Amino acid sequence: MVTLRQLRTLAEHSDVYRDSQRIAIIDMGSNSWRLIVAEYVPHLSFKVVDEVRESVRISEGMAELNVMRPAAMDRAARVAQIYAAFCEAVGIENVVAVGTSAIRDARNQKRFLERIQRESGIEVRVLSGEEEAYYGYLAAVNSTTFDSGFVVDLGGGSLQICRVEDRKLVRAISFPLGAVRVTEGFLHSDPATAKELQNLSSHLREQFEALDWFRQEPGMMMVGEGGTLRQIARLQQKRADYPLDILHGYVMSYSHVSTIRDELAELTVGGRKKIVGMKTDRADISLGGAAVVYEVMRASGFEEMVICGQGLREGLFYERFLATNGDSAQAGDPPVFDHVRRASVLNLCHLYRFQEKHAEHIVRLTLSMFDQIPANRHLCGADEREILWAASMLHDIGVSVDYHDHHKHGSYLVLNAGLPGYTHREIALIALLVRYHRKGKPTTDELDELLEDRDDKRLVQMCALLRLAEQLDRSRDGVVHDVRLAVNGNHARMELLVTGDEQVPLWAVEHHREIFEQAFGFELEVVPVPEGE
Amino acid sequence: MVTLRQLRTLAEHSDVYRDSQRIAIIDMGSNSWRLIVAEYVPHLSFKVVDEVRESVRISEGMAELNVMRPAAMDRAARVAQIYAAFCEAVGIENVVAVGTSAIRDARNQKRFLERIQRESGIEVRVLSGEEEAYYGYLAAVNSTTFDSGFVVDLGGGSLQICRVEDRKLVRAISFPLGAVRVTEGFLHSDPATAKELQNLSSHLREQFEALDWFRQEPGMMMVGEGGTLRQIARLQQKRADYPLDILHGYVMSYSHVSTIRDELAELTVGGRKKIVGMKTDRADISLGGAAVVYEVMRASGFEEMVICGQGLREGLFYERFLATNGDSAQAGDPPVFDHVRRASVLNLCHLYRFQEKHAEHIVRLTLSMFDQIPANRHLCGADEREILWAASMLHDIGVSVDYHDHHKHGSYLVLNAGLPGYTHREIALIALLVRYHRKGKPTTDELDELLEDRDDKRLVQMCALLRLAEQLDRSRDGVVHDVRLAVNGNHARMELLVTGDEQVPLWAVEHHREIFEQAFGFELEVVPVPEGE
Repeated sequence: MVTLRQLRTLAEHSDVYRDSQRIAIIDMGSNSWRLIVAEYVPHLSFKVVDEVRESVRISEGMAELNVMRPAAMDRAARVAQIYAAFCEAVGIENVVAVGTSAIRDARNQKRFLERIQRESGIEVRVLSGEEEAYYGYLAAVNSTTFDSGFVVDLGGGSLQICRVEDRKLVRAISFPLGAVRVTEGFLHSDPATAKELQNLSSHLREQFEALDWFRQEPGMMMVGEGGTLRQIARLQQKRADYPLDILHGYVMSYSHVSTIRDELAELTVGGRKKIVGMKTDRADISLGGAAVVYEVMRASGFEEMVICGQGLREGLFYERFLATNGDSAQAGDPPVFDHVRRASVLNLCHLYRFQEKHAEHIVRLTLSMFDQIPANRHLCGADEREILWAASMLHDIGVSVDYHDHHKHGSYLVLNAGLPGYTHREIALIALLVRYHRKGKPTTDELDELLEDRDDKRLVQMCALLRLAEQLDRSRDGVVHDVRLAVNGNHARMELLVTGDEQVPLWAVEHHREIFEQAFGFELEVVPVPEGE
Repeated sequence: MVTLRQLRTLAEHSDVYRDSQRIAIIDMGSNSWRLIVAEYVPHLSFKVVDEVRESVRISEGMAELNVMRPAAMDRAARVAQIYAAFCEAVGIENVVAVGTSAIRDARNQKRFLERIQRESGIEVRVLSGEEEAYYGYLAAVNSTTFDSGFVVDLGGGSLQICRVEDRKLVRAISFPLGAVRVTEGFLHSDPATAKELQNLSSHLREQFEALDWFRQEPGMMMVGEGGTLRQIARLQQKRADYPLDILHGYVMSYSHVSTIRDELAELTVGGRKKIVGMKTDRADISLGGAAVVYEVMRASGFEEMVICGQGLREGLFYERFLATNGDSAQAGDPPVFDHVRRASVLNLCHLYRFQEKHAEHIVRLTLSMFDQIPANRHLCGADEREILWAASMLHDIGVSVDYHDHHKHGSYLVLNAGLPGYTHREIALIALLVRYHRKGKPTTDELDELLEDRDDKRLVQMCALLRLAEQLDRSRDGVVHDVRLAVNGNHARMELLVTGDEQVPLWAVEHHREIFEQAFGFELEVVPVPEGE
């Protein structure tokens, strides 16, 4: 595993940003083919810098004989040529192309691969079902706080189910039950008939009931991946007028899936295309997909599924990004972040070129104060401590947009980047802390529905600490090395351990004592103490 | 003047970003003292990276005897010390401090300056009224398309009026009629009495009527600067629920100023503090300020005033930023951008590290197509051509936030940065073009009220050109060198002059021909032509 120390050490050399590399990953799925270009500095930061998607649907008409049809092969060959030309024009030499279910199962696979190779020069690596499942697992475990449970990856051609324990993959299976496949195999009418849906359900139940290791156990979560799942989640977000524009981390309930499946079943393909949030080229397979998701949740007994916006492509990427493991890695260990949340905060920090020294000093001051607030005044616990850590690290990233209103820009960046590993409640709180780290009365605004009871008060407490810390380091020179807090009844005496001129911090804090006093109900006295005394 | 070529040549060396310099500018105004830190690469790009404001109000109680009061001097000395400590802690050696009206007029100026020097080490340059006016003029002429007319700069202590012809300053005068001064001199009651307001009006009219060169003439515009003016504009924006959060470039009418003045006159200071958008420490002087603005517009005959968000501090900054003028500069020329709009687009491009080659190639393709569209199909003219130029340059800056949804991020950046020199209508159109340069049906959304009649249709035309150009350079290698458009009735034949493999552009354009056909009513045929044929 990669340690935080490694990330840190690299970050201290700002020249490291110049050693960025690029890789193109082509995912030749049964429904769509995608090409992503990722730019990364090994172990430090990464981002997708380009993306192309084509609906190729190579699995079209394969249901019967498992033979790729000539028309589908022609479409595929053309797109392969274009992707190859694209990579060449853009100047990327490192191209990884993988084929999944449709290519894997096609009886004419060999002729197809030869044609692709001949016409585009692309060497396709055909993944086995287990390999496909493994990369889906890598994506989930590197982008969520997933510890034990199942990863369900629903593609156009196949469905992968992984069982994970202590972040390790312990079982994996692949079924030919992708959204395109089940649609072609079972749902011939438009709209589908009750009988067709009944047959599909029976078929799915038979398959899943045989999997005795696929049942919910205490402490387990279910993570869902794949374009069809993202499509269903997007429909649910639109219906609910969800306040965030992020799919990753979205929690979808069994009853939502059930409702969406029933509603799609009522409609023709044409009718489904008109639903707000529906991608036109997914409308036909959306009902089959929803049916699979519904039966997956039913069979395993999960009430909720957490959507993962990443998948196979990202799994292939992590394998390379985390390739050279650190000292702590054992041979055979999967390429997995030590700590997903930290990695995702640090990634954002580096992408926006944060001022590392100042950010870490703010972390030191906020957490020092946090830990010294007496328990009987604290509304916050360990969860909020980690939220405060993240907000302290990220509070200034908005400066990369503009100094003016950088608190607003930073909040925008956090809400749009999404911070994999944090729940949407946590992301909302981090964004609000960034938003109010300088001024303004902290309010939960339109993010309210993501929050828990009393989070408005927790927000004010965390905000008070962050704002005071920011003022103590207003000159960004770390002159206030640490603080000591002594509480006596309603009176709090805060000693600033200073290593130099205390004028700026004392002046700066003056304007912001009020929020602290209101948040904790103290009267605050601030006293500079030269360090060593 | 600095030429575009100079900006460009420098930009080609990306290492140039490393030669950035920092300067602190301290503006010791009569009401507030501000410190800004600007980071800049000479001639290339600049941004404010820190800002501190304190309400010092050194002019308090000066109205009568023109003597700074001890309490005011104590406040000033303390803030000077803190600002000096701040600059030292942050490590800025280049500190420029200027004093304006209150310090200029104080009979105890010498003692005051000595005290400031002794206690903080800061050497204050006291500006004459003409110098203060000159820097206000520099800010206006470098951040608007101002050609001829007047710059009105209303501070706490004084009011400056400049007459500008052909971007040159031809007359300047300073009056001791700042918002703090007139409030202390005339408005003693709370709320102010009709008699007090009457006396103030009479006094102002007397002063302005004597200025025979201060009258509107054809082709002139009025630009307004200063905190009090920004405050009035902000109140008007809040009242009107204005869709943009930008003050710079906002157009305020005489009747708005009149209404706001009348409404403020009805209220006590306490009542004014409760108005949405009112800064607490400006509430007391807001009525006096509004009265001055009203009389200024009345005397000169302007129906509208364009708000300039910059002022003295930026003027001092431009003097340094544009210090070494290019070959085209004449000795004695003021430090002024050749072309404000171009400078402001390029500044944004550089701040977000745009891909210069790709952006300029998109410019070439969009403008080439623009110029070849027959006049009878065109809804756009020279104005829109410049808007399209700006959008082509800026279309990808959102990638600095994230590749995913970079069209949305880019639009956010344009709307928040504001592009000095462009009107709000133009900024809205540029932001919409960036927003829709990849996909989606171009709609004017909530920016509608900033636009003119038929701008929705112009937007679609410009968007069609930008989107086609973007697809023609999808692989970013300039393979389509130029296009030739031949129109015959409803049929348009577009020849792509290609220098290499045309597969990617042909494939990419396919998905986007529809918007072009709809925008111009053509049926589009796209034909690659190897260059030279």
